[in-house]
Amino acid sequence: MTIITLTTDFGASDGYAGVMKGVILGIASDVTLVDISHDVLPQDVRGGAFVLKTASPYFPPGTIHVAVVDPGVGSERRILAVQTPRATFIGPDNGVLSWAIERESVLAFIHVNQPAYWLDTVSSTFHGRDIFAPVAAHLARGVPIERLGNAIDDLIRLPLPHPRYDAFGTLHTEVIYIDRFGDLITGIEVKLDDRCGESASFGLINLPNGAPQLYLTSQSRVEILGQRIDSVARSYADVAPGDLLALVGSSGHVEVAMRNGNAAAALKAQIGAPVRVTLHRY
Amino acid sequence: MTIITLTTDFGASDGYAGVMKGVILGIASDVTLVDISHDVLPQDVRGGAFVLKTASPYFPPGTIHVAVVDPGVGSERRILAVQTPRATFIGPDNGVLSWAIERESVLAFIHVNQPAYWLDTVSSTFHGRDIFAPVAAHLARGVPIERLGNAIDDLIRLPLPHPRYDAFGTLHTEVIYIDRFGDLITGIEVKLDDRCGESASFGLINLPNGAPQLYLTSQSRVEILGQRIDSVARSYADVAPGDLLALVGSSGHVEVAMRNGNAAAALKAQIGAPVRVTLHRY
Amino acid sequence: MTIITLTTDFGASDGYAGVMKGVILGIASDVTLVDISHDVLPQDVRGGAFVLKTASPYFPPGTIHVAVVDPGVGSERRILAVQTPRATFIGPDNGVLSWAIERESVLAFIHVNQPAYWLDTVSSTFHGRDIFAPVAAHLARGVPIERLGNAIDDLIRLPLPHPRYDAFGTLHTEVIYIDRFGDLITGIEVKLDDRCGESASFGLINLPNGAPQLYLTSQSRVEILGQRIDSVARSYADVAPGDLLALVGSSGHVEVAMRNGNAAAALKAQIGAPVRVTLHRY
Repeated sequence: MTIITLTTDFGASDGYAGVMKGVILGIASDVTLVDISHDVLPQDVRGGAFVLKTASPYFPPGTIHVAVVDPGVGSERRILAVQTPRATFIGPDNGVLSWAIERESVLAFIHVNQPAYWLDTVSSTFHGRDIFAPVAAHLARGVPIERLGNAIDDLIRLPLPHPRYDAFGTLHTEVIYIDRFGDLITGIEVKLDDRCGESASFGLINLPNGAPQLYLTSQSRVEILGQRIDSVARSYADVAPGDLLALVGSSGHVEVAMRNGNAAAALKAQIGAPVRVTLHRY
Repeated sequence: MTIITLTTDFGASDGYAGVMKGVILGIASDVTLVDISHDVLPQDVRGGAFVLKTASPYFPPGTIHVAVVDPGVGSERRILAVQTPRATFIGPDNGVLSWAIERESVLAFIHVNQPAYWLDTVSSTFHGRDIFAPVAAHLARGVPIERLGNAIDDLIRLPLPHPRYDAFGTLHTEVIYIDRFGDLITGIEVKLDDRCGESASFGLINLPNGAPQLYLTSQSRVEILGQRIDSVARSYADVAPGDLLALVGSSGHVEVAMRNGNAAAALKAQIGAPVRVTLHRY
Repeated sequence: MTIITLTTDFGASDGYAGVMKGVILGIASDVTLVDISHDVLPQDVRGGAFVLKTASPYFPPGTIHVAVVDPGVGSERRILAVQTPRATFIGPDNGVLSWAIERESVLAFIHVNQPAYWLDTVSSTFHGRDIFAPVAAHLARGVPIERLGNAIDDLIRLPLPHPRYDAFGTLHTEVIYIDRFGDLITGIEVKLDDRCGESASFGLINLPNGAPQLYLTSQSRVEILGQRIDSVARSYADVAPGDLLALVGSSGHVEVAMRNGNAAAALKAQIGAPVRVTLHRY
């Protein structure tokens, strides 16, 4: 059974996600539907992109991911279907898909414009129901992606907030996502390697431009909104309840958290709050 | 596999919807369960009726829709099962089903009163678990609807807030639902027809009582709480971010929205806020 | 198809529960996934324990229940798999499973420590994804529970707030859970028996230590935060809208509720608020 996931800003109250499932099941009755999130903040394309980026790698090959964070619905913005070796992604061409496919090789970029695979009546305000859902269902039934529209070259890419590395050896980044626990997820993404299993080293920083190999360790200095975070640790349990810490979170990004508490509330930090990290070489 | 949908005011925190699914799967292990909403406002029968009305038409034939917005649970209020050519509806007899079936021909109205299809122990406060869920599961397994209880003639109908058409050619209605985006959905329902595909005309107003054919166009005048909405448009993208507009929403109702914003908050509008619309003839 | 349920404090916004489902479906593609709750309050082990206790008995035999309310993730706290005649439970050893299995005979207590059944890379902050989900999926595929780790003797048990029975014949307890409707659920659990079907008697109080048989009746006196609740009734509908009442709720616990209103808000009552109940003998 093909899996179709949904990532939207529809919320849980109005039935919009349920309607999409009704449309999908009417076309492809044997798919497995999985909600990734329907509580992306309204029209928060970047938040949707982050959730899809972190969740999609954990689904089995062949999964179809549908993202509907679509403030431009009804405008001339394109609808995309993107096929990679692992998955197919469907969403508006506003960047919401771009982080999820950033490191994937793309087998097909399709501008979805063939109404044969849409509902008969297409509203100007709910393409999730009228276009995305039926297109995903037809793909699940085996319609080749090329039949959905024209091949194109590329999509709109959200700038990834790659950290800037200054002359004094400090990484400058910002908070790019705040989760339900108030964990402040930064733009610094860490590549774990075998050398990171032990004691002090927590992860190889994945710098974009051939910078030196750097490690986040318990000696690293992490500041957010100008405030030093005392502990750089491996897990929440390494500090006392109520204490702040920096760590490599489950998304692979450096984050600032509070054990058994809410770091965002404690620090009054929002998306975009500046973060500085001074790392260590070996 | 039969689809069973759930529309409730149970929220997501307490496990009440999950319990219903456990009961259903214990009786009919191969159904497909779909959540339409569990975040109808507590005891908001009208909100539940609206969500079910807008979502249910998009499910495939044979779907069983269960609605549990049930402030009268434990009283003498009846429980209903209603069969139409498209679907079966189960819910309390308080109006929550009435909008969904308003334009359907009804094949069977059943007063659900045969405990053979309920859980052995029935609480006085959670009929969703003890009656609605097992009844839906038995239906999905093929129990004929007539076995669930006695045939009856009709159900309690919520008054649909049909717009009133005054002597000066203006429709008077109100806000009947506010969605997660703050879109203000009015009681004016629009029937789209072929003539509405073009330029200025957005939809034929579906007046109840033989009134003249009227159209919502970009020249129509829309007021809410006495404030004129400047734009009547086809989609959010037709106005600038932060601007208010009136349009025909995905539910087929005229709504007032704010592009990339929250119209309900901006206008301080609540359910029941008065709306006036002056339309155009051709 | 085996059912796997999820009870977490992950919320709905960040995709954490969806990720767990992706992992499960990658290992066991034909399970049926059911969300019990993802809105347990962050790190509220007791709330999670209560939701799991009340929901799990309604699932069919063989269900696998996964609970992730895990403030100690990354510490030395153990992960448990517990098998009873009805179900298998997986969760951290912090008490979150203890109420659900309190009255079950336990067939196996396993300390989950065999990484062969985990994801290859295990983060220190998201064991729900990296350990609990794959372990549940392998169990669903038929891996014997003993293969997951070592047999142990017992788990950490949350103290159940058993009511105290004083010399004047009054039960002393507290509010242990507040649900979405603001119903205040107390530590008094009621055992319904055949004698409770009628008129005034609502349930046999299940006292822990051989106390006399007592009944909650319409003559019982219920106080919360020192305030007398006027009505002890069978269902919300027995009192007027807006009135407070005490009743045996669907969880089998005595609760204080407000018909068509929110008792917690009206009484400004929180978890731990003291409750006194004076019962009747026959």
